Amino acid sequence: MGERGLRLGLVGLGTIGTGVVRMLQAQGPALAQRLGAPLELVHVADVDLERERGVPLDAYRQTRDWREVVADPDVELVIELVGGTGVAREIAHATLAARKDLVTANKALLSAHGPELFASAAEHGVDIAFEASVGGTIPVLRALREGLCADRIEAVHGIVNGTCNFILSEMDSGGDPYAACVKRAQELGYAETDPTLDVSGADSAQKLSILLALALGVHVDPGNLPTEGIERIAPVDMEFARQLGLRIKLLATAKERDGGIEARVGPTMIPATSVLAGVAGAMNAVEVRGRHSGPTLYYGAGAGALPTASAVLGDVMELARNRRLGVSGRVPPLGTPFLREAELRSPEEIEAEYYLRFAVLDKPGVLASITGVLGNLGISIASVVQPERHASEAVPVVIMTHRAREASVQRARARIETLGEVRERAQLIRIEREL
Amino acid sequence: MGERGLRLGLVGLGTIGTGVVRMLQAQGPALAQRLGAPLELVHVADVDLERERGVPLDAYRQTRDWREVVADPDVELVIELVGGTGVAREIAHATLAARKDLVTANKALLSAHGPELFASAAEHGVDIAFEASVGGTIPVLRALREGLCADRIEAVHGIVNGTCNFILSEMDSGGDPYAACVKRAQELGYAETDPTLDVSGADSAQKLSILLALALGVHVDPGNLPTEGIERIAPVDMEFARQLGLRIKLLATAKERDGGIEARVGPTMIPATSVLAGVAGAMNAVEVRGRHSGPTLYYGAGAGALPTASAVLGDVMELARNRRLGVSGRVPPLGTPFLREAELRSPEEIEAEYYLRFAVLDKPGVLASITGVLGNLGISIASVVQPERHASEAVPVVIMTHRAREASVQRARARIETLGEVRERAQLIRIEREL
Repeated sequence: MGERGLRLGLVGLGTIGTGVVRMLQAQGPALAQRLGAPLELVHVADVDLERERGVPLDAYRQTRDWREVVADPDVELVIELVGGTGVAREIAHATLAARKDLVTANKALLSAHGPELFASAAEHGVDIAFEASVGGTIPVLRALREGLCADRIEAVHGIVNGTCNFILSEMDSGGDPYAACVKRAQELGYAETDPTLDVSGADSAQKLSILLALALGVHVDPGNLPTEGIERIAPVDMEFARQLGLRIKLLATAKERDGGIEARVGPTMIPATSVLAGVAGAMNAVEVRGRHSGPTLYYGAGAGALPTASAVLGDVMELARNRRLGVSGRVPPLGTPFLREAELRSPEEIEAEYYLRFAVLDKPGVLASITGVLGNLGISIASVVQPERHASEAVPVVIMTHRAREASVQRARARIETLGEVRERAQLIRIEREL
Repeated sequence: MGERGLRLGLVGLGTIGTGVVRMLQAQGPALAQRLGAPLELVHVADVDLERERGVPLDAYRQTRDWREVVADPDVELVIELVGGTGVAREIAHATLAARKDLVTANKALLSAHGPELFASAAEHGVDIAFEASVGGTIPVLRALREGLCADRIEAVHGIVNGTCNFILSEMDSGGDPYAACVKRAQELGYAETDPTLDVSGADSAQKLSILLALALGVHVDPGNLPTEGIERIAPVDMEFARQLGLRIKLLATAKERDGGIEARVGPTMIPATSVLAGVAGAMNAVEVRGRHSGPTLYYGAGAGALPTASAVLGDVMELARNRRLGVSGRVPPLGTPFLREAELRSPEEIEAEYYLRFAVLDKPGVLASITGVLGNLGISIASVVQPERHASEAVPVVIMTHRAREASVQRARARIETLGEVRERAQLIRIEREL
């Protein structure tokens, strides 16, 4: 960083990239004052340079070829906002190999190729930062890597997908079915035309993989994380949860207990009085449990151009400060110099309480059949709720279990689904009371 | 920091100091791995070396004279956990002058003498860190100084005193009066024998002074912050708030709007649906509003030996990382190299909605008199609630105003208190709906 300050290159002028440009223009003088030298955007790349971005770009060199940004001798730090794991991976490697710092918001890239990128950064004596990859604007990765770095983290529970949280909040407050709430999310720009990556839980699994590394120091490929989406949640489940003093959230969970690691993404019932239950709409939050620090929680916008730009530029400021002092590698990107490879605990070993909902024909004996299956598998029942009867129509039966092994509950569900009086696939939702 | 790692001195073996020793002993190997070198406590000081602390101290040099710790050539970083602004200030200055890093949890010291300490640290080329001074274990100062450093912060609302939040939570959930809840807080160790510093709001004002510096870049002496405690909150106020969809919290608030700064500590009614309203018991939380980042919130234990120790050792780790690289002053302690001196906006200029409760003799015409005073001062009434009547006994009358000038509302209250039918001092609580 010369007297001119730190010079930046930006690849990707989509929503977030444009937000970064806009925020840099608005905050330029303040950032220069805080840093003691200006941040200067010099070169931007996007495959489409024709589209009107709503922000003046004339002051910057522009190119369709990202290689020109990375190769520009004036560029000291590259912001990668392309997304995905194809060209983004090339950009990242080329940047680090050119001994330039890298800032990215790319959770897919980091969860798939983090270790090779961190190794390259260390080898080339540069830094890589990625706060915006989990929880959008919320500085939760920094909290894990620095603020809580003296503690031993025992659990993380995150609402890390704003699309899902918006849809579930809408279902919960208005009682509308899933499909109608997805449509509303799309109309408001909270969901993509194809919302699969979000609603399937896959996006949350990528973020959970990053949280697992930072919180528990282990590497688990997102593809190996048990992942369930919100597509099968119905308003009736919301309603039952409410009656039980619970709420349904899509949680990304990681815990270390008795030396074993449990991690999953899935709809989860949590106490209505917990802070996480109060996280509404498209907001994100991550609760961290430390052995000494206890529970701490981090809340904010998980997406959006300017909130995400704030996290990206927070990273740029950090790397600028390191460059000013001529240092790199001050803190390992994941807080610890190396990760353990982890085997996740199997469903045979996981114990929790569960909510089961069956659609049954209301005939005498059906409840006895269901509870018989549960009893035979050693699953103890905490309560059974069977709302008003509708002759010959399928009606819901809700069963709350005491703590039981997940594998047994899955087995019970499968067996019960084969009973003649049971219609549709059963609903099975885990309950987390310790929140 | 030599090959032996970073060597620490600790002054003050009270609750937090003992917690730091215990946590260092538990986390030693993990911290050494994360840092690449051990943290080694070598010298501890306390005026009382006889008392049993419940943690082995034999491995450390011990002294009653803090000067020996600061002067110990083996000590590279001093942790000051004495508290107060007397000897703590001497310890801080001596440490910095000896070119040693300083970690402190001392909000009184920082809010009163921060600028002179920061100047000394810069002059001597060492670092000072103080995450534990606000919000206990919560890394909220780090979030303001680093994660959100690219943004312009527009407001901060904090529940930063666990004692007050515990007392208010107890009053709210059980309906018990203030005095009984203070007693319970004392029995549970959440309140001191003399709880004045906490319940008067003075502790919150010290923390708000630090938040003001980090969030808005201004210096305001805690003594100049309008401060009101919780001593006059009654269960009936809690009950009325609840009926109105609000909750009462002791908030430390700072806002910058139209170039003016508004800051205060006081009981405040906030929407029951806000995340801050869900912060129960002795927990702390700080909500930050950034122009680009939007609202973010940070929640956790505001006190306690181990949660506070976690924040102290997080700071130690940060400074150890700087020492390893041979750098200091990476980030200015307040995020910005210099603070503005700020004039707070006067009550004549502040506008808000207010809750007023009067105890009146239920005679014809009394409501007309009260509303007449409000009308004459240009205060528009949003609603009036007068519960069931008790012949000749004083009954509460609750008035919610529309947005009005604080000075006018104060004037109205004073005038109404002079009316013959009005008993006791009136209750006046500000409402913050934008949470």
